[in-house]
Amino acid sequence: MSKIKLATDAIVFGYQHSQLFVALVKRKYPPFKGQWALPGGFVLENENLETAVKRELREETGIHINYLEQLYTFGETGRDPRRRVVSVAYFGLVRPKDFKIKAATDAAEVAWFDVKKLPPLAFDHKKIMKTALGRLRAKLTYQPIGLNLLDKKFPFGDLERLYSTILDKKIDRRNFRKKFLKFGILDELDEYASAIDKGRPGKLFSFDKRKYNALRKEGILFEIR
Amino acid sequence: MSKIKLATDAIVFGYQHSQLFVALVKRKYPPFKGQWALPGGFVLENENLETAVKRELREETGIHINYLEQLYTFGETGRDPRRRVVSVAYFGLVRPKDFKIKAATDAAEVAWFDVKKLPPLAFDHKKIMKTALGRLRAKLTYQPIGLNLLDKKFPFGDLERLYSTILDKKIDRRNFRKKFLKFGILDELDEYASAIDKGRPGKLFSFDKRKYNALRKEGILFEIR
Repeated sequence: MSKIKLATDAIVFGYQHSQLFVALVKRKYPPFKGQWALPGGFVLENENLETAVKRELREETGIHINYLEQLYTFGETGRDPRRRVVSVAYFGLVRPKDFKIKAATDAAEVAWFDVKKLPPLAFDHKKIMKTALGRLRAKLTYQPIGLNLLDKKFPFGDLERLYSTILDKKIDRRNFRKKFLKFGILDELDEYASAIDKGRPGKLFSFDKRKYNALRKEGILFEIR
Repeated sequence: MSKIKLATDAIVFGYQHSQLFVALVKRKYPPFKGQWALPGGFVLENENLETAVKRELREETGIHINYLEQLYTFGETGRDPRRRVVSVAYFGLVRPKDFKIKAATDAAEVAWFDVKKLPPLAFDHKKIMKTALGRLRAKLTYQPIGLNLLDKKFPFGDLERLYSTILDKKIDRRNFRKKFLKFGILDELDEYASAIDKGRPGKLFSFDKRKYNALRKEGILFEIR
């Protein structure tokens, strides 16, 4: 009989107000009791991996999420002090305000943490976080994943801030705007944002998902660097 | 006790003479006895995943390989008719002539197959192959992985043929050459290939790995589309 246990962990990123968060749970049981960790747990024998990770996430945080992407499988011997555990990690990106996260059955506490101010994490979860963050940043440059996180109609600055936050770097605004608009998946609306910030009120934009899908079908690839 | 078994599979691509191959083994035991499959097998309890996949590859094919990259974990219930088996797949790219592949302990036969003329494969290995091929093609556009497969000094046409073969499409030769040379990781030598083909003998090139690594450190990304 196999002595390797199969687990799954979820890295759920949340973007809001120019901050990038990740959902963590405080462990109720040893090992690492009382420490923060990624939500996750063991895969049941008759359960697909994606079903397992969604279930664990729901049970531990109350977050229901439709789409998680497989990140990587972490399997170093010794990563769990109890026994051999191999974990298939999945990640996703959501709007924190869409979820009232709450500690559910298995975890003592759950919270959103700014990825720049993480507490010490249980197991090899720091390494998993780093891998996930790298993948999220790479993905942002070749898929317009961030657009789902903005309001339906948004000033261009919101998109800039999203990229700047997730990529954690300054963005050449003019160049970014030119590149993004050239790609043709944003509709420039005839509406203006109310001038809350200083300066002229900016035009509002919306993401044209249909156009994006049509371009993809033609093999035209999105890319922002 | 966990009833999920953990396995690993290897997709070893081989490039030679404008053909892309993959190493397959003929199964000696049921299920799928007598059918072709990717080399692979179960992970031992005290063994890292990468150690396991290299061991299985060695045992089944005689191929020793230093670097394999994790591709994806395939874990659908029912993918193995015997019981629940989750497989972590790894892939790599080699020169077939570097290995005299031979059936070793666990497999009845081993051979290189042209990826365009694959036999029916056991388990979900067709799906795994498709995923691997997609990843290999994507990778070729953002890492100069193919260069390791050419002779130390090569005519530019060899590089073109490699890209054209792996990407399975015609390449705009002038554009490809311009882009590749502009990136500055090839040294144009003062030597010429002997004119075996019709036409003028072409200059020879070599891959400047040091320059490539220096560019990477500066954050300059390789890209060929």
